Amino acid sequence: MSRIPALSEQLRKLNIEQMYENDFFLTWDKSDDEIAAVFAVADALRDLRERNISTKIFDSGLGISNFRDNSTRTRFSFASACNLLGIEVQDLDEGKSQIAHGETVRETANMISFMADVVGIRDDMYIGKGHTYQQEVADALRDGYETGVLEQKPTLVNLQCDIDHPTQCMSDLLHVIHAFGGVENLRGKKVAMTWAYSPSYGKPLSVPQGVIGLFTRFGMDVVLAHPKGYDVMDAVEKVARSNAEQSGGSFTKTNNMKEAFYNADIVYPKSWAPYAAMEERTELYGVGDFDGIDALEQRLLQQNAAHKDWECTEEMMSLTRDGSALYLHCLPADITGVSCDEGEVAQSVFDRYRVPLYKQASFKPYIIAAMIFLSKVKDPASALEMLEARAAERKAF
Amino acid sequence: MSRIPALSEQLRKLNIEQMYENDFFLTWDKSDDEIAAVFAVADALRDLRERNISTKIFDSGLGISNFRDNSTRTRFSFASACNLLGIEVQDLDEGKSQIAHGETVRETANMISFMADVVGIRDDMYIGKGHTYQQEVADALRDGYETGVLEQKPTLVNLQCDIDHPTQCMSDLLHVIHAFGGVENLRGKKVAMTWAYSPSYGKPLSVPQGVIGLFTRFGMDVVLAHPKGYDVMDAVEKVARSNAEQSGGSFTKTNNMKEAFYNADIVYPKSWAPYAAMEERTELYGVGDFDGIDALEQRLLQQNAAHKDWECTEEMMSLTRDGSALYLHCLPADITGVSCDEGEVAQSVFDRYRVPLYKQASFKPYIIAAMIFLSKVKDPASALEMLEARAAERKAF
Amino acid sequence: MSRIPALSEQLRKLNIEQMYENDFFLTWDKSDDEIAAVFAVADALRDLRERNISTKIFDSGLGISNFRDNSTRTRFSFASACNLLGIEVQDLDEGKSQIAHGETVRETANMISFMADVVGIRDDMYIGKGHTYQQEVADALRDGYETGVLEQKPTLVNLQCDIDHPTQCMSDLLHVIHAFGGVENLRGKKVAMTWAYSPSYGKPLSVPQGVIGLFTRFGMDVVLAHPKGYDVMDAVEKVARSNAEQSGGSFTKTNNMKEAFYNADIVYPKSWAPYAAMEERTELYGVGDFDGIDALEQRLLQQNAAHKDWECTEEMMSLTRDGSALYLHCLPADITGVSCDEGEVAQSVFDRYRVPLYKQASFKPYIIAAMIFLSKVKDPASALEMLEARAAERKAF
Repeated sequence: MSRIPALSEQLRKLNIEQMYENDFFLTWDKSDDEIAAVFAVADALRDLRERNISTKIFDSGLGISNFRDNSTRTRFSFASACNLLGIEVQDLDEGKSQIAHGETVRETANMISFMADVVGIRDDMYIGKGHTYQQEVADALRDGYETGVLEQKPTLVNLQCDIDHPTQCMSDLLHVIHAFGGVENLRGKKVAMTWAYSPSYGKPLSVPQGVIGLFTRFGMDVVLAHPKGYDVMDAVEKVARSNAEQSGGSFTKTNNMKEAFYNADIVYPKSWAPYAAMEERTELYGVGDFDGIDALEQRLLQQNAAHKDWECTEEMMSLTRDGSALYLHCLPADITGVSCDEGEVAQSVFDRYRVPLYKQASFKPYIIAAMIFLSKVKDPASALEMLEARAAERKAF
Repeated sequence: MSRIPALSEQLRKLNIEQMYENDFFLTWDKSDDEIAAVFAVADALRDLRERNISTKIFDSGLGISNFRDNSTRTRFSFASACNLLGIEVQDLDEGKSQIAHGETVRETANMISFMADVVGIRDDMYIGKGHTYQQEVADALRDGYETGVLEQKPTLVNLQCDIDHPTQCMSDLLHVIHAFGGVENLRGKKVAMTWAYSPSYGKPLSVPQGVIGLFTRFGMDVVLAHPKGYDVMDAVEKVARSNAEQSGGSFTKTNNMKEAFYNADIVYPKSWAPYAAMEERTELYGVGDFDGIDALEQRLLQQNAAHKDWECTEEMMSLTRDGSALYLHCLPADITGVSCDEGEVAQSVFDRYRVPLYKQASFKPYIIAAMIFLSKVKDPASALEMLEARAAERKAF
Repeated sequence: MSRIPALSEQLRKLNIEQMYENDFFLTWDKSDDEIAAVFAVADALRDLRERNISTKIFDSGLGISNFRDNSTRTRFSFASACNLLGIEVQDLDEGKSQIAHGETVRETANMISFMADVVGIRDDMYIGKGHTYQQEVADALRDGYETGVLEQKPTLVNLQCDIDHPTQCMSDLLHVIHAFGGVENLRGKKVAMTWAYSPSYGKPLSVPQGVIGLFTRFGMDVVLAHPKGYDVMDAVEKVARSNAEQSGGSFTKTNNMKEAFYNADIVYPKSWAPYAAMEERTELYGVGDFDGIDALEQRLLQQNAAHKDWECTEEMMSLTRDGSALYLHCLPADITGVSCDEGEVAQSVFDRYRVPLYKQASFKPYIIAAMIFLSKVKDPASALEMLEARAAERKAF
């Protein structure tokens, strides 16, 4: 049965005018209506595709991807989203370690965008750089459009920065919404966003930050747990506190993993690097002190090793609500005895949640496509209805 | 004149139900009807394209290519096949030497396939690994589909593994069918699949194995010739013997190149590495013994050098039926005096057969497209007729 | 208001029969009518896209790009042009330094082109090689088509060679035409194509050569200025002189930058390497003398450093007509105090011309698309009218 009528009706009630021709940097830049609209359009696009109805709104046009860090999953999600909408992907391969400035950013942004409808950027390597870079690109594109250089204003989609990972966290949340039977059922649920041990160092902070910045908007009790010294960005904690206050939920912190897991409905145990260490690393990188970076890495690995008990074991899971919290991970996880000797999660826990984890990931192409759709289509509700009425087959025979 | 009516009629007589939603690993997994269907659809797609009729059956969707070894020709053939059908290619670039296992294979297979209609894999580097890896991926994809992670079941197409090279050998055979004026004319023809000298070592076995595993199905007399010690996989020789028995042809072996060429209608002289040596290499690789690999390489090069007389010279060609056997090669060939000092084939022989060789290669995009078509379209005969009736122009003006 | 009726009418008056199924190597291979046709079609395609009218003339097909040197801008321009017309890009990644010959070129050209409608090549690294290579590929493709290997004749588009850079220089000129309000207003204008200092060495000659080979066709007074020893190819100077004679303009040379800038309407100050040095470099490369190449590089950098006064400063600009000549650059420019300490242009000059410079670059995708269009469409005037009448939306909602 088609979900389009209900989703279109829902969209019409939302105030989403500001999304048109706009960018997507951080979830907390967006209103609750705008966040709801992304979920509604993502569900609608998936519903259409499941019924073999084409969702192409473009006949041609380019989607530029700029991955300033290795990526397979997000790369494929972006390519899938563009393909869903009829845009062809063109990769911009910059040197990974290169941090471009000013003139170069502005010029490159315009030079690659003459036919671009969307530019997706992943830049999460250096604290204080990724988000700034994305804003520079977006400013350059807006300027290029306004001065007549570009014939359309490409939408910038943040595919992960140093502050937030909106396409990941919104996929995570849409998965949660489906798992709990609707966004209205999230109120009062306990979410444990916890650090977990990994033998690798320096994993980005954007996932825990994104999760506390987004999940606190839905009246849930969000607990951020990590060993002492593994703090995330202060500014994002402030966002989380403010969100919780407004949504009637809560945001608390603990250095005790068990406390976080206790009676949790949702757990998201995942390694990350201390924010302060990542700032230090960025400064070392800035002055080219690679010996200093190596020393920092060693220090961080030792620091991590002191917290091997932060693992999502069966015992930990048994502390959660009815012993069956929804386990989340952005993947790939460090699975004890599988991908490493000691890691973030026990094999038996991971195995039990494999299918839900894969489903969690499966929302990302639709979330990205929804972000693009909402920035490109003036009346999304009608457009979805017309796509359904047009009923062009995705696969002809 | 349209070939569609005749080819559709032929397709309707074949039992090809099992091809729908299925994969393509090895030609000997497939029935004679299924092999015939691939040829028929390949011819039909080519016929339509030659008459500027679009063969796009997809409006969107991704074709994932995973080349675990360098490739230009097969990469372009796969891209061409996907383009023919309306699927956009997205490359998965894994590290070349990386042999992933279990969890990683399963997870990656799903993560890249949310919008994938087809996954094409080339993995021919290590004996006992390539085919196994492809099966692991296909199992993961089937599982992903059945558990609701994937909205469609991507078809796996073997673009070369350690055992078979079905898209190559079926292109070779379709070329032969055209050259001899129909599959019915192949009965009784003599085919010489022979080793030939090359200054490089370690060329894959998948081509000779694929050829003896496929060509023996058509009542031909297939001779496999190589110097002592250059044996191919025993399991594939068994397939060839069994095929020959059933088809009323023969499969014989010799260590004498001239004997193989004598009165041959078709010759396929090509270098490959001894199966036993390739097994040894895989083991050395498995334990990380790179000095051992270098030593093996030197030994193999010396062994090769003892057989420089295995060259497809004019004198050799003069032994064939009327001195004018059809010369086959998967390209690129090692041409004496052109790409190397001493190689697989004399320049004058190669030059005389250049156009037929290029035509031989030109079938590959259509063979791949046919494999995808047959796995995606429930009623291929009607679909071809409808494509012709729809008559959408590939080039508009 | 639609420009299509006027542009179609203009096209109908031009003798462009020879463009159909033809290639584009050098602007001076083409008649004045053919050059005018490229500009007309580029303007028409842009006009249609600006009005959200699809310009797809292909439903499928491949555009092969072969960049034998790093490229971002031209890569994206080619991808944009193909996307405009409905062709999917497939990159051929050859080793950068590899100079293939004979058999390999012919074979590879055919193997990648079974579904190719266009092949775009950038090969500007070695004097005497790039253009020759492109011709070899085009000959192979023509031969492949004529012998029935290829079902369509792919069009070769020169994306930069050692002699000319037609897609760049035609974009430059179309920008000039728009800036001066029509090609009829170019007569008598003074153009200064001048060398400028850059801290890097060995920049290609194809831009200055392309500019003097093209701009001299429009009755302008073209001055080529450079320090002694920085001569360009003699053959191209001859083309420029002959063009100037026929068009009623002039082509002169000077070693004085100020003289060139004096009363100029258009200035194009840009670094390049001496032709003789590039010939030497090619020879050193040919014999594998990498020490010699390093020594040559040092010599050239020293030679460059003697000419740091060749910079497009405000003082230089004040010499031009009303102090406001149109400043051109193919980008990226070496901007003093921005991308280098001392460079081709002062920051304040560059900043003032940034928007026009970006617009200059924005014509390239349309120029490339026009070259392809004219080689693929038999009656371009009617095709443009039909595209407008068809009025397929590029973006649906």
